[in-house]
Amino acid sequence: MTAKQELRENLEFLPKFDNNDLITAIAQDATTGQVLMVAYMNREALDETIRTGYGTYFSRSRGKLWRKGEESGHRQKVEQILVDCDQDCLILKVAVDAGQCHVGYQSCFYRALKDPADNKLQFIADKVYDPKQACEK
Amino acid sequence: MTAKQELRENLEFLPKFDNNDLITAIAQDATTGQVLMVAYMNREALDETIRTGYGTYFSRSRGKLWRKGEESGHRQKVEQILVDCDQDCLILKVAVDAGQCHVGYQSCFYRALKDPADNKLQFIADKVYDPKQACEK
Repeated sequence: MTAKQELRENLEFLPKFDNNDLITAIAQDATTGQVLMVAYMNREALDETIRTGYGTYFSRSRGKLWRKGEESGHRQKVEQILVDCDQDCLILKVAVDAGQCHVGYQSCFYRALKDPADNKLQFIADKVYDPKQACEK
Repeated sequence: MTAKQELRENLEFLPKFDNNDLITAIAQDATTGQVLMVAYMNREALDETIRTGYGTYFSRSRGKLWRKGEESGHRQKVEQILVDCDQDCLILKVAVDAGQCHVGYQSCFYRALKDPADNKLQFIADKVYDPKQACEK
Protein backbone atom coordinates (compact mmCIF):
# COMPACT_ATOMS: atom_id res chain seq x y z
CA MET A 1 0.00 0.00 0.00
CA THR A 2 1.45 3.38 -0.98
CA ALA A 3 1.63 6.28 1.47
CA LYS A 4 -1.21 7.98 -0.42
CA GLN A 5 -3.41 4.89 -0.24
CA GLU A 6 -2.63 4.52 3.44
CA LEU A 7 -3.68 8.09 4.10
CA ARG A 8 -6.99 7.37 2.43
CA GLU A 9 -7.76 4.10 4.16
CA ASN A 10 -6.38 4.42 7.67
CA LEU A 11 -7.89 5.83 10.81
CA GLU A 12 -5.10 8.11 11.94
CA PHE A 13 -6.05 11.77 11.91
CA LEU A 14 -3.14 13.35 10.03
CA PRO A 15 -4.43 16.71 8.73
CA LYS A 16 -2.29 18.03 5.92
CA PHE A 17 -1.51 21.72 6.22
CA ASP A 18 -0.49 23.61 3.08
CA ASN A 19 2.60 25.71 2.39
CA ASN A 20 1.10 28.47 4.52
CA ASP A 21 0.49 26.00 7.37
CA LEU A 22 -3.25 26.20 6.77
CA ILE A 23 -5.99 23.69 6.07
CA THR A 24 -9.36 24.52 4.47
CA ALA A 25 -12.34 24.11 6.79
CA ILE A 26 -15.99 24.14 5.72
CA ALA A 27 -18.57 24.99 8.36
CA GLN A 28 -21.79 23.15 7.57
CA ASP A 29 -25.03 23.40 9.53
CA ALA A 30 -25.36 20.00 11.19
CA THR A 31 -29.14 20.13 10.98
CA THR A 32 -29.94 21.62 7.59
CA GLY A 33 -26.78 20.70 5.64
CA GLN A 34 -26.39 24.30 4.52
CA VAL A 35 -22.77 25.29 3.91
CA LEU A 36 -22.29 28.37 6.05
CA MET A 37 -18.75 29.49 5.32
CA VAL A 38 -15.30 28.37 4.27
CA ALA A 39 -12.29 29.42 6.30
CA TYR A 40 -8.80 28.28 7.19
CA MET A 41 -7.18 26.77 10.25
CA ASN A 42 -3.61 26.53 11.36
CA ARG A 43 -2.60 23.81 13.83
CA GLU A 44 -3.36 26.07 16.78
CA ALA A 45 -6.86 26.90 15.52
CA LEU A 46 -7.62 23.23 14.92
CA ASP A 47 -6.33 22.24 18.35
CA GLU A 48 -8.41 24.95 19.98
CA THR A 49 -11.50 23.90 18.02
CA ILE A 50 -11.08 20.33 19.20
CA ARG A 51 -10.33 21.34 22.78
CA THR A 52 -13.12 23.89 23.21
CA GLY A 53 -15.73 22.41 20.88
CA TYR A 54 -16.26 25.79 19.20
CA GLY A 55 -15.20 26.75 15.66
CA THR A 56 -11.88 28.60 15.73
CA TYR A 57 -10.07 29.65 12.57
CA PHE A 58 -7.02 31.54 11.45
CA SER A 59 -7.83 34.89 9.89
CA ARG A 60 -5.53 35.35 6.93
CA SER A 61 -6.38 39.04 6.65
CA ARG A 62 -5.69 39.75 10.32
CA GLY A 63 -2.93 37.17 10.72
CA LYS A 64 -4.26 35.77 13.98
CA LEU A 65 -6.69 33.30 15.53
CA TRP A 66 -10.31 34.02 14.84
CA ARG A 67 -12.69 32.68 17.43
CA LYS A 68 -15.86 32.69 15.33
CA GLY A 69 -18.57 34.58 17.15
CA GLU A 70 -16.29 36.07 19.77
CA GLU A 71 -17.47 39.53 18.82
CA SER A 72 -20.76 38.86 17.06
CA GLY A 73 -22.01 36.18 19.41
CA HIS A 74 -22.70 33.88 16.45
CA ARG A 75 -20.55 31.01 17.64
CA GLN A 76 -20.37 27.56 16.10
CA LYS A 77 -20.80 24.58 18.40
CA VAL A 78 -18.93 21.77 16.71
CA GLU A 79 -20.79 18.49 16.64
CA GLN A 80 -18.52 16.52 14.33
CA ILE A 81 -15.30 16.99 12.36
CA LEU A 82 -14.98 15.20 9.02
CA VAL A 83 -11.84 14.87 6.96
CA ASP A 84 -11.54 14.12 3.26
CA CYS A 85 -9.66 11.34 1.48
CA ASP A 86 -6.37 13.22 1.24
CA GLN A 87 -6.80 14.80 4.67
CA ASP A 88 -6.28 18.28 3.27
CA CYS A 89 -9.79 19.57 3.93
CA LEU A 90 -12.13 19.47 6.92
CA ILE A 91 -15.88 19.81 7.41
CA LEU A 92 -17.12 21.07 10.74
CA LYS A 93 -20.69 20.02 11.36
CA VAL A 94 -21.91 22.82 13.56
CA ALA A 95 -24.92 23.95 15.54
CA VAL A 96 -25.54 27.66 15.10
CA ASP A 97 -28.04 30.39 15.73
CA ALA A 98 -29.12 32.76 12.98
CA GLY A 99 -26.58 34.77 11.03
CA GLN A 100 -23.23 33.17 10.36
CA CYS A 101 -22.01 35.55 7.67
CA HIS A 102 -20.66 38.93 8.74
CA VAL A 103 -22.55 40.59 5.88
CA GLY A 104 -25.80 39.72 7.64
CA TYR A 105 -26.87 36.47 6.02
CA GLN A 106 -27.21 33.00 7.50
CA SER A 107 -24.58 31.70 5.06
CA CYS A 108 -21.75 33.44 3.22
CA PHE A 109 -23.16 31.85 0.07
CA TYR A 110 -26.09 34.22 -0.43
CA ARG A 111 -25.58 34.80 -4.15
CA ALA A 112 -25.76 32.48 -7.14
CA LEU A 113 -24.77 32.86 -10.75
CA LYS A 114 -27.86 34.00 -12.63
CA ASP A 115 -26.80 34.69 -16.14
CA PRO A 116 -23.45 33.04 -16.90
CA ALA A 117 -23.10 34.83 -20.22
CA ASP A 118 -23.30 38.20 -18.50
CA ASN A 119 -21.48 37.18 -15.32
CA LYS A 120 -24.50 38.25 -13.30
CA LEU A 121 -25.39 37.09 -9.79
CA GLN A 122 -28.69 37.03 -7.96
CA PHE A 123 -29.41 37.09 -4.26
CA ILE A 124 -30.78 33.75 -3.06
CA ALA A 125 -31.30 34.67 0.58
CA ASP A 126 -32.50 37.46 2.83
CA LYS A 127 -30.46 39.00 5.61
CA VAL A 128 -31.21 37.55 9.01
CA TYR A 129 -29.54 40.19 11.18
CA ASP A 130 -28.08 43.67 11.02
CA PRO A 131 -24.32 43.36 10.64
CA LYS A 132 -23.82 46.87 11.95
CA GLN A 133 -24.83 45.54 15.34
CA ALA A 134 -22.23 42.78 15.29
CA CYS A 135 -19.33 43.16 12.94
CA GLU A 136 -16.46 40.80 13.39
CA LYS A 137 -14.50 40.91 10.18
CA MET B 1 -18.96 52.04 -0.09
CA THR B 2 -15.50 50.44 0.02
CA ALA B 3 -14.32 48.03 -2.68
CA LYS B 4 -14.70 45.17 -0.20
CA GLN B 5 -18.25 46.16 0.69
CA GLU B 6 -19.08 46.50 -2.97
CA LEU B 7 -17.79 43.01 -3.66
CA ARG B 8 -20.11 41.70 -0.97
CA GLU B 9 -23.22 43.55 -1.98
CA ASN B 10 -23.15 43.77 -5.74
CA LEU B 11 -24.35 41.38 -8.41
CA GLU B 12 -21.28 41.22 -10.61
CA PHE B 13 -19.67 37.81 -10.68
CA LEU B 14 -16.01 38.62 -10.01
CA PRO B 15 -14.44 35.37 -8.77
CA LYS B 16 -11.18 36.00 -6.95
CA PHE B 17 -8.41 33.59 -7.90
CA ASP B 18 -5.53 33.13 -5.47
CA ASN B 19 -1.78 33.51 -6.05
CA ASN B 20 -1.80 30.19 -7.89
CA ASP B 21 -4.68 31.40 -10.09
CA LEU B 22 -7.05 28.97 -8.38
CA ILE B 23 -10.36 29.28 -6.57
CA THR B 24 -11.74 26.74 -4.10
CA ALA B 25 -14.87 24.93 -5.28
CA ILE B 26 -17.11 22.75 -3.14
CA ALA B 27 -19.27 20.18 -4.91
CA GLN B 28 -22.47 19.68 -2.94
CA ASP B 29 -25.24 17.24 -3.79
CA ALA B 30 -28.13 19.48 -4.87
CA THR B 31 -30.68 17.04 -3.49
CA THR B 32 -29.25 15.79 -0.21
CA GLY B 33 -26.97 18.69 0.73
CA GLN B 34 -24.06 16.29 1.26
CA VAL B 35 -20.68 17.84 0.57
CA LEU B 36 -19.09 15.51 -1.95
CA MET B 37 -15.63 16.95 -2.51
CA VAL B 38 -13.53 20.08 -2.48
CA ALA B 39 -11.36 20.90 -5.45
CA TYR B 40 -9.85 23.86 -7.27
CA MET B 41 -10.60 25.69 -10.48
CA ASN B 42 -8.55 27.97 -12.64
CA ARG B 43 -10.29 30.41 -14.96
CA GLU B 44 -10.36 27.86 -17.76
CA ALA B 45 -11.95 25.19 -15.56
CA LEU B 46 -14.59 27.62 -14.34
CA ASP B 47 -15.37 28.79 -17.86
CA GLU B 48 -15.68 25.20 -19.05
CA THR B 49 -17.93 24.33 -16.11
CA ILE B 50 -20.23 27.22 -16.96
CA ARG B 51 -20.18 26.48 -20.67
CA THR B 52 -20.73 22.72 -20.48
CA GLY B 53 -22.79 22.51 -17.29
CA TYR B 54 -20.53 19.77 -15.94
CA GLY B 55 -18.04 20.08 -13.05
CA THR B 56 -14.54 20.72 -14.37
CA TYR B 57 -11.61 21.39 -12.08
CA PHE B 58 -7.88 21.98 -12.20
CA SER B 59 -5.89 19.06 -10.87
CA ARG B 60 -3.02 20.47 -8.85
CA SER B 61 -1.23 17.11 -8.76
CA ARG B 62 -1.45 16.58 -12.51
CA GLY B 63 -1.21 20.24 -13.46
CA LYS B 64 -4.07 20.13 -15.94
CA LEU B 65 -7.82 20.35 -16.38
CA TRP B 66 -9.75 17.61 -14.65
CA ARG B 67 -13.11 16.87 -16.18
CA LYS B 68 -14.70 15.14 -13.21
CA GLY B 69 -16.03 11.77 -14.27
CA GLU B 70 -14.33 11.74 -17.63
CA GLU B 71 -12.71 8.41 -16.79
CA SER B 72 -14.93 7.09 -14.00
CA GLY B 73 -18.23 8.12 -15.52
CA HIS B 74 -19.22 9.81 -12.24
CA ARG B 75 -19.84 13.23 -13.73
CA GLN B 76 -21.37 16.19 -11.93
CA LYS B 77 -24.27 17.95 -13.61
CA VAL B 78 -24.17 21.50 -12.30
CA GLU B 79 -27.53 22.89 -11.26
CA GLN B 80 -26.38 26.09 -9.58
CA ILE B 81 -23.17 27.95 -8.79
CA LEU B 82 -23.01 29.92 -5.55
CA VAL B 83 -20.30 32.37 -4.54
CA ASP B 84 -19.39 33.56 -1.07
CA CYS B 85 -19.22 37.08 0.33
CA ASP B 86 -15.62 37.72 -0.70
CA GLN B 87 -16.03 35.84 -3.98
CA ASP B 88 -13.05 33.61 -3.22
CA CYS B 89 -14.97 30.35 -2.87
CA LEU B 90 -17.64 28.62 -4.95
CA ILE B 91 -20.26 25.98 -4.27
CA LEU B 92 -21.42 23.85 -7.15
CA LYS B 93 -24.82 22.36 -6.49
CA VAL B 94 -24.63 19.18 -8.52
CA ALA B 95 -26.72 16.20 -9.55
CA VAL B 96 -24.69 13.00 -9.36
CA ASP B 97 -24.99 9.26 -9.49
CA ALA B 98 -23.40 7.06 -6.83
CA GLY B 99 -19.72 7.31 -6.02
CA GLN B 100 -18.11 10.72 -6.26
CA CYS B 101 -14.90 9.95 -4.39
CA HIS B 102 -12.16 8.06 -6.21
CA VAL B 103 -11.59 5.92 -3.11
CA GLY B 104 -15.02 4.36 -3.64
CA TYR B 105 -17.29 6.41 -1.40
CA GLN B 106 -20.17 8.70 -2.29
CA SER B 107 -18.33 11.62 -0.67
CA CYS B 108 -14.64 12.26 -0.02
CA PHE B 109 -15.65 12.97 3.56
CA TYR B 110 -16.11 9.37 4.68
CA ARG B 111 -14.21 9.65 7.96
CA ALA B 112 -14.85 11.67 11.11
CA LEU B 113 -12.77 12.41 14.15
CA LYS B 114 -13.69 9.83 16.76
CA ASP B 115 -11.39 10.35 19.67
CA PRO B 116 -9.76 13.78 19.49
CA ALA B 117 -7.35 13.01 22.33
CA ASP B 118 -5.94 10.08 20.39
CA ASN B 119 -6.28 11.64 16.93
CA LYS B 120 -8.42 8.70 15.84
CA LEU B 121 -10.88 8.65 12.95
CA GLN B 122 -13.85 6.44 12.28
CA PHE B 123 -15.50 5.52 9.00
CA ILE B 124 -18.94 7.10 8.70
CA ALA B 125 -19.89 5.64 5.31
CA ASP B 126 -19.69 2.48 3.26
CA LYS B 127 -18.15 2.26 -0.17
CA VAL B 128 -20.67 2.51 -2.97
CA TYR B 129 -18.52 1.26 -5.86
CA ASP B 130 -15.25 -0.49 -6.57
CA PRO B 131 -12.64 2.15 -7.36
CA LYS B 132 -10.49 -0.42 -9.18
CA GLN B 133 -13.13 -0.39 -11.89
CA ALA B 134 -12.97 3.36 -12.33
CA CYS B 135 -9.88 5.13 -11.10
CA GLU B 136 -9.47 8.72 -12.15
CA LYS B 137 -6.93 10.17 -9.75
